[in-house]
Amino acid sequence: MAILLDETNDAKRTSWVTSANGHGDFPIQNLPLGIFSVRGDTPRGGVAIGDEVFDLKAASDAKLVSGDADKAARAASNPTLNELMALGAGPRAALRKQLSALLAAGTAESARAKPLASKLLHKAADCTLHLPAKIGAYTDFFAGITHAENGGKRRGANPPLSPNYKYVPVAYHSRASTVRPSGVPVRRPNGQRVVDGEQLPTFGPCLKMDFELEFGIWVGQGNAWGEPIPTGQAFDHIYGFCMLNDWSARDIQRWESAPLGPFLSKNFGTTISPWMVTPEALAPFRIAQPARPEGDPKPLPYLWDEADQREGQLDLEIEVLIHTEAMRAKGAPPQRIAVSNTKHLYWTVAQMVAHHTCGGCALEPGDIFGSGTISGPTPENYGSIAELSFDGTKDITLANGEIRRWVQDGDDIYLRAHGRRAGYASIGFGDCCARMVAAK
Amino acid sequence: MAILLDETNDAKRTSWVTSANGHGDFPIQNLPLGIFSVRGDTPRGGVAIGDEVFDLKAASDAKLVSGDADKAARAASNPTLNELMALGAGPRAALRKQLSALLAAGTAESARAKPLASKLLHKAADCTLHLPAKIGAYTDFFAGITHAENGGKRRGANPPLSPNYKYVPVAYHSRASTVRPSGVPVRRPNGQRVVDGEQLPTFGPCLKMDFELEFGIWVGQGNAWGEPIPTGQAFDHIYGFCMLNDWSARDIQRWESAPLGPFLSKNFGTTISPWMVTPEALAPFRIAQPARPEGDPKPLPYLWDEADQREGQLDLEIEVLIHTEAMRAKGAPPQRIAVSNTKHLYWTVAQMVAHHTCGGCALEPGDIFGSGTISGPTPENYGSIAELSFDGTKDITLANGEIRRWVQDGDDIYLRAHGRRAGYASIGFGDCCARMVAAK
Repeated sequence: MAILLDETNDAKRTSWVTSANGHGDFPIQNLPLGIFSVRGDTPRGGVAIGDEVFDLKAASDAKLVSGDADKAARAASNPTLNELMALGAGPRAALRKQLSALLAAGTAESARAKPLASKLLHKAADCTLHLPAKIGAYTDFFAGITHAENGGKRRGANPPLSPNYKYVPVAYHSRASTVRPSGVPVRRPNGQRVVDGEQLPTFGPCLKMDFELEFGIWVGQGNAWGEPIPTGQAFDHIYGFCMLNDWSARDIQRWESAPLGPFLSKNFGTTISPWMVTPEALAPFRIAQPARPEGDPKPLPYLWDEADQREGQLDLEIEVLIHTEAMRAKGAPPQRIAVSNTKHLYWTVAQMVAHHTCGGCALEPGDIFGSGTISGPTPENYGSIAELSFDGTKDITLANGEIRRWVQDGDDIYLRAHGRRAGYASIGFGDCCARMVAAK
Repeated sequence: MAILLDETNDAKRTSWVTSANGHGDFPIQNLPLGIFSVRGDTPRGGVAIGDEVFDLKAASDAKLVSGDADKAARAASNPTLNELMALGAGPRAALRKQLSALLAAGTAESARAKPLASKLLHKAADCTLHLPAKIGAYTDFFAGITHAENGGKRRGANPPLSPNYKYVPVAYHSRASTVRPSGVPVRRPNGQRVVDGEQLPTFGPCLKMDFELEFGIWVGQGNAWGEPIPTGQAFDHIYGFCMLNDWSARDIQRWESAPLGPFLSKNFGTTISPWMVTPEALAPFRIAQPARPEGDPKPLPYLWDEADQREGQLDLEIEVLIHTEAMRAKGAPPQRIAVSNTKHLYWTVAQMVAHHTCGGCALEPGDIFGSGTISGPTPENYGSIAELSFDGTKDITLANGEIRRWVQDGDDIYLRAHGRRAGYASIGFGDCCARMVAAK
């Protein structure tokens, strides 16, 4: 469980890759893992460092890494990271230590790496980032309690939270085959929905397109069928984190969901940020699970672990930005429309893992979880446009005068996340962005 | 769409594999595809014929098949059939024609095959049958309308069917990683549930274990993301069929499902019959979709195809049998507790495919659908024990005097399916059986 802070988290460490120093997302303290290719060559594992991508196969070929770190680098030389993820935390941490030393300014190790820079580094601008893993299964949790409450209100539920909410880390299985990395446009789906003011369903383009501000959780080592993972060991099965936009067709969802839950309203496309930010990089941003409000039940024993309560939550600022066609035409930057924090989750990541497996369900390397939409307590913290526009009844007026109640064709939606803590280097997740394009 | 009857369906054709003639499941008119191994050797593709398994790699190696049929046999020489399934219907049909001729009594082709029988055939009793494909995604439909009505009544819904039911082929994503072939025991899950008479949830073994009598549908060629499959072309994407027991923990389901549907109550284990029965083998059992009752809405245009209405439904007798520990101890055979028919499905397989993809969701070779529980109109047709025991309120008395309200540890549950039509050979699916074992 314990991920210890070490020299790789030291804020004073700088890199000879100068773009990394002070980089908003990828300073040397981050070193997230991903799959990249350069101008159509074979996809393989890499690490983001400043404005560059560090090539793990090249590092292994040049014998810059050794032992477990080389084992990790070789496993990462495939077109997906699944083999690496199956190795678990040890080789990942070993690789991080050696890479940090190789990329740091003024270390003995860097003297070996720097002369090989032209082989080891690729400009990120020249790289295509792919899905980092072949996703076996995508499970979407519902751990953002404010989002759950706001959704209940929209459905007219009274009380808005279902009776199980404070006992069960509610989740549903979603669709892995349509998860795409940042940058890939998502097409508005056609589907059955009952148009406002009508009585009967018709088939046509979704009229209530939404985003969802979620945190993504990558599974590393899985569990055997029938063998639950206890909460206290759950974090060992987590390989990394990303941002996840669980695009949602609200009108289709409203009509289709009884009685078995959302299906087509969620499976037309999901966007993730392509870099896996590791538990080691996030060690400075681990915090205690906030105390449950007075009167809330204590989690059942299988969901309770003292260490998890003490350090199982994450303190990451997360935000949603919109970049409309009109903004892009004027050269205006994306506009932030919501800001929240992962600490608003009602359940920890370890509780999600323990719950998912408590009945014996087998997790596999490359599975991904969505956290659920992470809204905070006040309207500016709302992580979906359904919440921000009060179910499409209230205008959201953008700085350039444009109005939104739902996502429109041509809108780029960005999710971003950053860890910031005094005494530590800030790190970020990179963009999770996709453009909504018109239905067929 | 059209799967034509040909000489491979001819009832008069017999096989030199004499156990096939009159075989209840696997006469020469069936020839289902699967993955087998013999005493721990490498799993590979095979075809069931009587009490034997025909080895496709051995047939290809011996040059008994040619052209598209050999392409299919070579693709089937892997430990999963996914590569074969991606080839689509043409090579499958070509393989069937050549195999039928090779295995038929008295044909010129059989004179080439028969001398090689010791290489080509393995006693089924010596074989282990594996999952026929690596399952990318498992989607469970809800197309059994009587089951949906009975479930609504149990939930206290009035009317019992949700308003979308006659418009939407309702489905939810389920869990692929815990699907197992017939013969593998399934462990009763622990989970959160509210025990009868109590107010608050506790964690413990499922107390209301159920089976579900479902028809399984294997996807062959998929579709590109964003490219829907029209109903009229949907059958071309189906590779084969099996029986599927969607084990269901009803007490866990009742507590966890609000508002996003079933999760742990379904993902602890699903049992399928290991042979893929092909569309060609089922050609004699295709029937018109039964007329919708007066007043039911006509399906929306994207779900409507004249040919599908004319021949898109299947007429297969399906049944559930129980074999308790006490029956086994006495040497008694399994006892049938329900019998139904695939024709009771409210939606066709083609409508399921068209609906699943109408918003752009990408299907992939090796995906599997469950049909939903296929109950018929009268209590002896009910396809789940929750329906048979009226939600555990009514005893089911077995022939030996044992009583069931839910599935007990040690119970073997069998699902079986047969096609029977005058003038055609009867075919069957083989067993879909698993034993429920005690929770940890």
